[in-house]
Amino acid sequence: MSTTVLRTQDIARIVHATGLRPFLERLLATMEADFRRWPEFDKSPRSAAHSASGVIELMPIADATLYAFKYVNGHPLNHLRQLPTVMAFGVLAEVATGLPLLLSEMTLTTALRTAVASVMAARRLARPGSRTMALIGNGAQGEFQALAFHLLMGIDEIRLYDLDAEANAKLIRNLRACPALKLRACASTAEAVRGADIVTTATADKTLATIITPEMLEPGMHVNGVGGDCPGKTELHRGVLERAARVFVEYAPQTRIEGDIQQMPADFPVTELWRVLRGEAPGRSDEREITVFDSVGFALEDFSALRLLRDCALELGLGEPLALVPELDDPKNLFGQLSAEPLRPAKAPVTPRPSVQAA
Amino acid sequence: MSTTVLRTQDIARIVHATGLRPFLERLLATMEADFRRWPEFDKSPRSAAHSASGVIELMPIADATLYAFKYVNGHPLNHLRQLPTVMAFGVLAEVATGLPLLLSEMTLTTALRTAVASVMAARRLARPGSRTMALIGNGAQGEFQALAFHLLMGIDEIRLYDLDAEANAKLIRNLRACPALKLRACASTAEAVRGADIVTTATADKTLATIITPEMLEPGMHVNGVGGDCPGKTELHRGVLERAARVFVEYAPQTRIEGDIQQMPADFPVTELWRVLRGEAPGRSDEREITVFDSVGFALEDFSALRLLRDCALELGLGEPLALVPELDDPKNLFGQLSAEPLRPAKAPVTPRPSVQAA
Repeated sequence: MSTTVLRTQDIARIVHATGLRPFLERLLATMEADFRRWPEFDKSPRSAAHSASGVIELMPIADATLYAFKYVNGHPLNHLRQLPTVMAFGVLAEVATGLPLLLSEMTLTTALRTAVASVMAARRLARPGSRTMALIGNGAQGEFQALAFHLLMGIDEIRLYDLDAEANAKLIRNLRACPALKLRACASTAEAVRGADIVTTATADKTLATIITPEMLEPGMHVNGVGGDCPGKTELHRGVLERAARVFVEYAPQTRIEGDIQQMPADFPVTELWRVLRGEAPGRSDEREITVFDSVGFALEDFSALRLLRDCALELGLGEPLALVPELDDPKNLFGQLSAEPLRPAKAPVTPRPSVQAA
Repeated sequence: MSTTVLRTQDIARIVHATGLRPFLERLLATMEADFRRWPEFDKSPRSAAHSASGVIELMPIADATLYAFKYVNGHPLNHLRQLPTVMAFGVLAEVATGLPLLLSEMTLTTALRTAVASVMAARRLARPGSRTMALIGNGAQGEFQALAFHLLMGIDEIRLYDLDAEANAKLIRNLRACPALKLRACASTAEAVRGADIVTTATADKTLATIITPEMLEPGMHVNGVGGDCPGKTELHRGVLERAARVFVEYAPQTRIEGDIQQMPADFPVTELWRVLRGEAPGRSDEREITVFDSVGFALEDFSALRLLRDCALELGLGEPLALVPELDDPKNLFGQLSAEPLRPAKAPVTPRPSVQAA
């Protein structure tokens, strides 16, 4: 009855034991399978608690069998306190009983699933034969986006730009053992974007930014907007959204609140990605149109990741048990948990009182 | 940077080390202090995923310093699978960074906090000098309601009724070491309610039930409705709500969806309890009026409980650390977690692949 716990090192072990490319491929297959059965899910926009320093969100979703939620924060100045900007963990539970089956770290997992979701969209929306990508914002997400596009889509040249030159250097250092992927640091966003097939933005600043402006766009580009994911946090100039032939989103009710389309009227036309994956709506229709994936991150991507991690953990014998839920001899006798517990001495000096019955 | 984990036995240890009465008093004081600063909280109705067998909910809340959420299910037939009807766990996190500070079991904690919330309301709404309570539905909540009303409000006679005679017997067995509390098993709800100062309903059935009907009401009664807490799950006949001088709720936007008042029009007048605690609205105004607390359980009660548990765990040296969030030398270098992890052999037979760099 205990819950299996996976920590960050367990996720790293799963990726190493599987191999990065096969792991990403398996995550992509799992996510596509879940997006194709979109109507089966009980969906809602995530709940968000905003403060001056950032946001804390809960992202629940369920099908008839499994319930999942993720806890995730976004605090752009966390690095000043030696903490990641985004930290996350998630739970997979049984719908039939509510029993939590898996509690997993999702800081590393979110980076992996976000990159895979970007590829899932780009495979339908970018020009066939795309080889070059501009990557604007090379924080915690950078390497994951670069490797997912390289390993799953054949992107072999990435042009990097970040306000922080050290972020570029870190990414190049981390990926130097991957010589088939050509990395080029650029002096500006415009330089990085020029001639790119795909433009990925993954900046962290919680402001109404205009990282990509309409004059940077070239015919046939696919824009993968990852960092505009919160009210007041955008990356694309509204002209970019107006120039696009079509704008694709994960889940419109959430993206209208959080995505780059928060700048647009409530009836701005968008296409939910699952409809493209099911063949119910067109993706890219010609070589010259501009496409935008206004990605904010949706609970279904976490559901897929947790489902896969659970399978991998079982296959590899990873994870530790945690007694999150009490085991009761008589499930109606919860009070037994209180009175049955012996008076063990606590570590700090306390004067134990008589047991509950005598209180 | 690690998160402190409290399991059910840790909560039991905290209660034993503190003593049940002092613990309940401290929880009551913490909860009242939090309810009195109600406007400081970022509140929302909980999210609920309903299925044929039950419901799974997330209950977030935050002030300027702390964020809390609880995961909780309600599955009335769980006892057939040796599981509690209600299982829960919760997290307390730092608003400034999003760091999760505490992960605690809340199955036992929910029973404790629900009973304390009932007393917090009844101290303002029941007739002064109340001595007898009817307790309808003696499942997992029963003993906690009985003891909280006995220890914190001086109730010394409780009349029990449950469809399941074994539930009555269990409660009487569990509380036999508390001779100052007179327990009387009754043959019907009507018999239990007759002459009671306070009527508490805590049934689990997920149906539109009418446990309490208007003809059972007597002048001056306070009705503490605990079990009607979900769309389609009520306990009070609508005539009971109509007969009440005033109906009190925790948080009206949530109670209108989930409480017994879901039967009433959207403008049915209610008073939020925090206004009574702050002296901004009247509680009971005379000896003969009928009052109703339509309790569904609100996130602030869990926030208070988690805040207290964290203090108690620190004082008593309880809790185990869990690395839910990765510790990064460079917080922008999340990818380092993946490439730095050595290829440790997993328990199951797998063929390790080369490291990420070589993938």
